Amino acid sequence: MSREPKPIDELTIWDDAKAMIRKGRAEGIETVHERLAKQPPCKICELGTSCRNCTMGPCRITAKSPRGVCGADADVVVARNFGRFVAGGAAGHSDHGRDLIEVLEAILTEETEDYRITDQAKLLRLAGELGIEVDGRDFKEVAEDVMECCFADFGSRKKSVGFLSRAPEVRRKKWDALGMTPRGVDREIAEMMHRTHMGCDNDAPNTLIHAARTALADGWGGSMIGTELSDVIFGTPTPKRSSANLGILKEDQVNLLVHGHNPVVSEMILAAAREPEMLARAKELGATGINVGGLCCTGNELLMRQGVPMAGNHLMTELAILTGAVEAIVVDYQCIMPSLVQISGCYHTKFIDTANKARFTGAIHFDFQPKTAMKQAREIVSIAVESFAERDASRVEIPCEPVEIMTGFSNEAVIQALGGSLTPLIEAIAAGDVRGAVGIVGCNNPKIKQDSLNVGLARELIKRDILVLVTGCVTTAAGKAGLLVPEAIEQAGPGLKKVCGALGIPPVLHYGSCVDNARFLQLCAALANELKVDISDLPVGASSPEWYSEKAAAIGLYAVASGIYTHLGHPPNILGSETVTNLAVSGLEDLVGATFFIEPDPVKTAEMFDTRIKAKRKALGLGE
Amino acid sequence: MSREPKPIDELTIWDDAKAMIRKGRAEGIETVHERLAKQPPCKICELGTSCRNCTMGPCRITAKSPRGVCGADADVVVARNFGRFVAGGAAGHSDHGRDLIEVLEAILTEETEDYRITDQAKLLRLAGELGIEVDGRDFKEVAEDVMECCFADFGSRKKSVGFLSRAPEVRRKKWDALGMTPRGVDREIAEMMHRTHMGCDNDAPNTLIHAARTALADGWGGSMIGTELSDVIFGTPTPKRSSANLGILKEDQVNLLVHGHNPVVSEMILAAAREPEMLARAKELGATGINVGGLCCTGNELLMRQGVPMAGNHLMTELAILTGAVEAIVVDYQCIMPSLVQISGCYHTKFIDTANKARFTGAIHFDFQPKTAMKQAREIVSIAVESFAERDASRVEIPCEPVEIMTGFSNEAVIQALGGSLTPLIEAIAAGDVRGAVGIVGCNNPKIKQDSLNVGLARELIKRDILVLVTGCVTTAAGKAGLLVPEAIEQAGPGLKKVCGALGIPPVLHYGSCVDNARFLQLCAALANELKVDISDLPVGASSPEWYSEKAAAIGLYAVASGIYTHLGHPPNILGSETVTNLAVSGLEDLVGATFFIEPDPVKTAEMFDTRIKAKRKALGLGE
Repeated sequence: MSREPKPIDELTIWDDAKAMIRKGRAEGIETVHERLAKQPPCKICELGTSCRNCTMGPCRITAKSPRGVCGADADVVVARNFGRFVAGGAAGHSDHGRDLIEVLEAILTEETEDYRITDQAKLLRLAGELGIEVDGRDFKEVAEDVMECCFADFGSRKKSVGFLSRAPEVRRKKWDALGMTPRGVDREIAEMMHRTHMGCDNDAPNTLIHAARTALADGWGGSMIGTELSDVIFGTPTPKRSSANLGILKEDQVNLLVHGHNPVVSEMILAAAREPEMLARAKELGATGINVGGLCCTGNELLMRQGVPMAGNHLMTELAILTGAVEAIVVDYQCIMPSLVQISGCYHTKFIDTANKARFTGAIHFDFQPKTAMKQAREIVSIAVESFAERDASRVEIPCEPVEIMTGFSNEAVIQALGGSLTPLIEAIAAGDVRGAVGIVGCNNPKIKQDSLNVGLARELIKRDILVLVTGCVTTAAGKAGLLVPEAIEQAGPGLKKVCGALGIPPVLHYGSCVDNARFLQLCAALANELKVDISDLPVGASSPEWYSEKAAAIGLYAVASGIYTHLGHPPNILGSETVTNLAVSGLEDLVGATFFIEPDPVKTAEMFDTRIKAKRKALGLGE
Repeated sequence: MSREPKPIDELTIWDDAKAMIRKGRAEGIETVHERLAKQPPCKICELGTSCRNCTMGPCRITAKSPRGVCGADADVVVARNFGRFVAGGAAGHSDHGRDLIEVLEAILTEETEDYRITDQAKLLRLAGELGIEVDGRDFKEVAEDVMECCFADFGSRKKSVGFLSRAPEVRRKKWDALGMTPRGVDREIAEMMHRTHMGCDNDAPNTLIHAARTALADGWGGSMIGTELSDVIFGTPTPKRSSANLGILKEDQVNLLVHGHNPVVSEMILAAAREPEMLARAKELGATGINVGGLCCTGNELLMRQGVPMAGNHLMTELAILTGAVEAIVVDYQCIMPSLVQISGCYHTKFIDTANKARFTGAIHFDFQPKTAMKQAREIVSIAVESFAERDASRVEIPCEPVEIMTGFSNEAVIQALGGSLTPLIEAIAAGDVRGAVGIVGCNNPKIKQDSLNVGLARELIKRDILVLVTGCVTTAAGKAGLLVPEAIEQAGPGLKKVCGALGIPPVLHYGSCVDNARFLQLCAALANELKVDISDLPVGASSPEWYSEKAAAIGLYAVASGIYTHLGHPPNILGSETVTNLAVSGLEDLVGATFFIEPDPVKTAEMFDTRIKAKRKALGLGE
């Protein structure tokens, strides 16, 4: 069943990636592309019609066996599987959010001195939004209330999670009417698992409504808490310059890559790497410095707040090690290919995991805790520094020079750039200079030529005067394509060029990591509130062109359920059910005012967004 | 790929089942057995080595493709899948437990008058166990604290769930050392989903440790809360007589079957069915009465507390409808084959679902709420009564006479039967009259001749002077086999015969529904505490011979993780990983003092238990 790996030119649009895939093949090191070629695709799993939720099965729903042993048909099986898929994504983001609350707790109980509250003003703003009394109260008391309120969002006692206060009232009423209001983050996840047990929810649309509720618990709950408390603890991002691609690795320095999603570990690693003792030891070993680079969303977190350069996105994580120039890769959790352990083992690279909930067989393990964070970070950085001595210079290949990027566009930063309110943006939208906005988010997927859609779609949208916001792995893609600098306005339409030119910002704004898609929800809600309309009335969209992760499914679903028209470059494994597929691509419009659409071509995708934005602008009484 | 259905004699040991399968085949109505025959088994899903947790896949781990696209090997994929399987089971039980807390809340806030606290003394005992001050306090305040404490067990703020206070200290220390102490019910479920996202937990043993923690959150958390609060609200079971098999259906009465797991709906249905107005209307329509019968665990709940007769267990649910004598089947959630809707549609039977989280396409739906419970229950019973007029007498076949059973053995009832303490039981164990105890729990599975193992194992164990406690679907099996009456001591060994004879109890005790396996945990903990040993030192075991459900996997795992040697009649889908399989059947011994064992033969299984019990008795300084 296994196929030949594709020619390298078909795998990626990037020269740095091609060089490393070539190096890997020459050195006999298998990467994701070779493994994909060996994987025999299972049509039934792809259709979503295989069920393993009990041992009367496993079952496969086909024309010859249209019902599973329990009697479930394709609709039920597909809905069950998709529900659990979304729950997996929501759980990832939300458990990450919980970790930030626990760090806040460690700060407030003085269990740790290694973390502190950096943005006190933001914490007070959040308190206000959560309905917590602020005036005349001790800061610490307010902070404790914020912490309690966030913890309570993970419990069973609320009727809705706290940050739903940000959503337009008309949207909240819609959710209530549909039974879609997320009550508690963990509760919706657990209930999703319960519903999909044999003999529970056997009505596909009903299961999907709860999948949407679970996703909303992620977007307006777990993810939003993750984003907001990260800002409180590590600082709210502000615009800054940095760089991206494998060229950020330095031949003469200790290269330490951080990978995963949560800034709790990586911020500490960065701080330790900047200590003079570490640098002195690196110099003793012949290095000129310690270079911390980012991968994936941990990279995005450090990039947004500290300007740390990005080595690459999802499909670059293996290839970064293949440069032979990486002393250590330090991971927290999510999207970390287990193959990285094996590939690190082919070089001097130390693979270090840091979370008890994400261990890797064969890794160096640290049980990273807030209380001992700085001490542990120093130990980890020391391992990286000492590893420099083991580097084999003959195997080092850093394939390019880095590309400059601009980053740090939190909503707070955008509002500041606009002079203190969203009014100038709304005026620009009303005038048609900025016709609308689309968030492009998510991943790479080896089934798709790396970043061809991520970059292609961004280019097509800005041409049409549609502002693009990028997060997650689309960041590095847009950055490497030269779209994350103010000079990229030359590739934009005349309106966007004018507006971004005047503000000195790129037409593609880096909005953060994957959990930071919550920033986009917040922006949409703020715009809708300002205009006194629903989110579904706005000329906005979302897209995940090259997604692979359950989190992307959760993000897509919370976007749609929030009223945002959402593109996927390829479908989730739902095509085995007409009911589920039709609901996703059309039926949801009547329920939540938005749907998914699936389109592999970036030009056609941009045209779809363009048509939608025209219609939404018209309904708002604006020109096309 | 589809095979011929097996001959009827190979499908079940019961005449009532055979008669109905025959009737179904004659009438052209498909049941679980025909659907199983049509299902082409997927070897890879059975091995647990297919992965659908991201869209870089789906992947199948085989000799030719030993790693998934992400790099995960068979160990990681099997551990991920098994972890989610257990999470599904834990979520089912626990969300059920949460529903009981919400009913308690509705009582305490006076939102409902239809439910009330029946066992106040038990609530006060629970408060004491949960560390809540009782003396001199208002009952309602104490009850509110119990409610808060139970809700908190589903949150993120605790270091361990409340009823862990019941476990021996040595066991709790073991859990702490292993990172297995369950902190919050929903939290562990959500973290299990997070860990099994691509790129998180990639160390199979570490994933399985968390699976055990998730299972413990079920057993000592969600399930135990479900059991205890059901007792508080509906009364703690006491011994009583009832009957079982399809013969409990009455040709001249309105037959209303309740199915699912939670007593919240079915208790109300029973109360409504006993109202004079309902009976009067039934008589108008020519019926002599309204006969409420139980299926599955909702049946067990009503049987334990109200003595309602049992129509059957898992594989009897379709067959009960095939009698043509069932006016309505009212379901809550879990283990309700979706096929029941279709089979009901072949008769006059009304299929009524009652939970928003468990809807069935084609069912009559009630959004059952504590506030309106009695009103809704009356509406539901009315539907059943009116349906009597539509019954087609020519299609009615009630295949047998019911068998008598005894039920109601809560721990409280057992202690009362023993004269107020466990001492007489401990003395009987020490003397060797009762050599040990085994809980036989769980399901039917159409892959196994119905109840052959459930009954076979119970018979073999009591012969060996091993006391048997049954819950869930094993109840009806043991009952139909005549093992749930005091007269069954004739089939027991001499010691057990003596002890049970003196107490006037059967050698096989009905201990409740599936969530009530928590009663067995509590009993083991109490025995261990009394003897000042760990649970793993006791001469006890657990078995699920014919399991099919994710809940059974969670139950099995919490039993093993609690130190109880546990038998499964067939393996979960883990055989594709040697690491996972070896850990399950031997490696866990070193960690938690118990393992799983897999054995399809009941005599050999009984011998395995016998050997284990001998060894445990010897270690305690007792005779064989």
